[in-house]
Amino acid sequence: MNNITVKLGERSYPIFIDNGTIDSPLILSQYIRNKSVCVVTNTTVSAIYLDKIRKLLVDYNLIEVILDDGEEFKNNDSLNLIYETLLKNSFNRDATIIALGGGVVGDIAGFASASFMRGIDFIQIPTTLLSQVDSSVGGKTGINHKLGKNMIGAFYQPKAVLIDMNVLKTLPDREISAGLAEIIKYGLIWDISFFEFLEENIEALKALDTAKLQYAIQKSCEIKSMIVAKDEKESNLRAILNLGHTFGHAIENCLGYGEWLHGEAVGCGIVMAAKMSLHHDRITKQDFQRILNLIAKAGLPVNMPEIELDKFLGAMKLDKKNKDNKIRLVLQKGIGKAEIVDDYSQDALKAIISS
Amino acid sequence: MNNITVKLGERSYPIFIDNGTIDSPLILSQYIRNKSVCVVTNTTVSAIYLDKIRKLLVDYNLIEVILDDGEEFKNNDSLNLIYETLLKNSFNRDATIIALGGGVVGDIAGFASASFMRGIDFIQIPTTLLSQVDSSVGGKTGINHKLGKNMIGAFYQPKAVLIDMNVLKTLPDREISAGLAEIIKYGLIWDISFFEFLEENIEALKALDTAKLQYAIQKSCEIKSMIVAKDEKESNLRAILNLGHTFGHAIENCLGYGEWLHGEAVGCGIVMAAKMSLHHDRITKQDFQRILNLIAKAGLPVNMPEIELDKFLGAMKLDKKNKDNKIRLVLQKGIGKAEIVDDYSQDALKAIISS
Repeated sequence: MNNITVKLGERSYPIFIDNGTIDSPLILSQYIRNKSVCVVTNTTVSAIYLDKIRKLLVDYNLIEVILDDGEEFKNNDSLNLIYETLLKNSFNRDATIIALGGGVVGDIAGFASASFMRGIDFIQIPTTLLSQVDSSVGGKTGINHKLGKNMIGAFYQPKAVLIDMNVLKTLPDREISAGLAEIIKYGLIWDISFFEFLEENIEALKALDTAKLQYAIQKSCEIKSMIVAKDEKESNLRAILNLGHTFGHAIENCLGYGEWLHGEAVGCGIVMAAKMSLHHDRITKQDFQRILNLIAKAGLPVNMPEIELDKFLGAMKLDKKNKDNKIRLVLQKGIGKAEIVDDYSQDALKAIISS
Repeated sequence: MNNITVKLGERSYPIFIDNGTIDSPLILSQYIRNKSVCVVTNTTVSAIYLDKIRKLLVDYNLIEVILDDGEEFKNNDSLNLIYETLLKNSFNRDATIIALGGGVVGDIAGFASASFMRGIDFIQIPTTLLSQVDSSVGGKTGINHKLGKNMIGAFYQPKAVLIDMNVLKTLPDREISAGLAEIIKYGLIWDISFFEFLEENIEALKALDTAKLQYAIQKSCEIKSMIVAKDEKESNLRAILNLGHTFGHAIENCLGYGEWLHGEAVGCGIVMAAKMSLHHDRITKQDFQRILNLIAKAGLPVNMPEIELDKFLGAMKLDKKNKDNKIRLVLQKGIGKAEIVDDYSQDALKAIISS
């Protein structure tokens, strides 16, 4: 069993990465404090995996919250359904929440864990490639507000993350591509040799080659956990994990959540950020072409959907990285490094959005 | 200017205690990170104090959220009103929330600060005696759920607390008594000589004698901040601050929030806990009489309102201290010390609730 540790002092926790992690009763049970367990999942995931969890936890007082599937349900109603279920079952501070699902389930369940009785234990079992390499690592939890994505939430770390690569076999191709967007991001912001590995192996990864996938997931989790360990609350460095997200969130916000997958919006956002980086000579034309090619080969959109400039800029203004009401961007510094930038050409930004 | 420090490592913060703390522009401004400030207050407090804050912060981008006054508004709707106001004004992570009001305002505004964009700065200006000695210290924030009090929230520390004793002069007597309940609690759980000071000076405190009040507030904040520093997340010790609250919360829950003031319910709850303590020979009859007398002299109720036994026990079961669905009590160990107890007579508990 491969595992890595996210190093956050007394909030440190392990990430297990393998085939079959959710079939092992030992892994899960050691992170459950007492008998009260609430599984939060969605209609799609529960149909495939909930029975496994039920069998693993047959000796526990197990309750279930099954949410509708989709980003549009990452809202206060879903959060409140979890609170109500916990309260109606007299669950207390010593209860554990298990998030069984993708990023939406993980984020809602994580914030419910952070805020129910001011914080109870939770365990992440991410069931999409995107959530395995991104949202399940690092403790960002939250829900969307009708005025903006992820506006309400908390930094709250799980007790453990169980990544089971077997679950990827049931995912549609679009979901795999969405996960690859975040994986490519790690190469772009941190590690050029990982980026090169991805260029060479993108087809194998799309075909779910076990060894290559395990390497890519582990590398992604390592890069993310290293950055999170250096800057848990996103004072500065952590913001580079937002490469492509300033644009991506605006795309999701303008189209309506759920129209594009988060990873698709991020993939397109990475290309838009690369265009800005090229404009400011932060990458070469050749670098830009490599980024564009890899995103396209990963099966991700490279062109922005048609959205009015002012609407798009308005959505970008809601970004949490912004300071003094000014949009901040994460731009490349070559391939393998990225920085927060607030000194950039407004005209270039507008041209890229309008093109 | 008297001030004490709540020692929590990088989350440490000062509490200023004096007459006129909110008239000093210097105190407030040094804890505001940039120009975006949102004051959260209620209709009652805003009528008296909001103009002071407006004048102090005339150079800031100041927005205001004025909630209805009362425990029944400590809910998700009020929380959401704060989120919406912040978002509509494009406030970001570098904004500061000022809580100007009693415990309800402080708790809601604190949780809004904890959860907006995963955490922004906040400053407490408590305007009731109860919030000055209790809820503004220690970082417990949250809202009520229709199924239980303070069920949703976070541990989140303010950047500073400004206690202005001048504001107490406009409070009704009932509010002063409610604050005295928590002050008496500190003597009971931690410091017999402070309890004796209160016995000797209860009339002067009710009459708002400046020197005695300042001593009592400072002592209360010191005891609370010491306990919080030892156990911020309430793993164990911090739970003794809940003396009287297991009963008190059940009273509030059964009567409907706002019927009794929180401090009144706690005062009555302290007497009920003292009855349990007496039953288990944890205090003498004489001790019990001293506790009863002081609570009564403070102007607090000593008898429980009429509530059906099962309903009351059901409400007690929702308490966050409970483990494995068993009600845990905070009981005296003489005067000046208290402990969490789960080994107590169920019959005595029922008899005390029914008497």
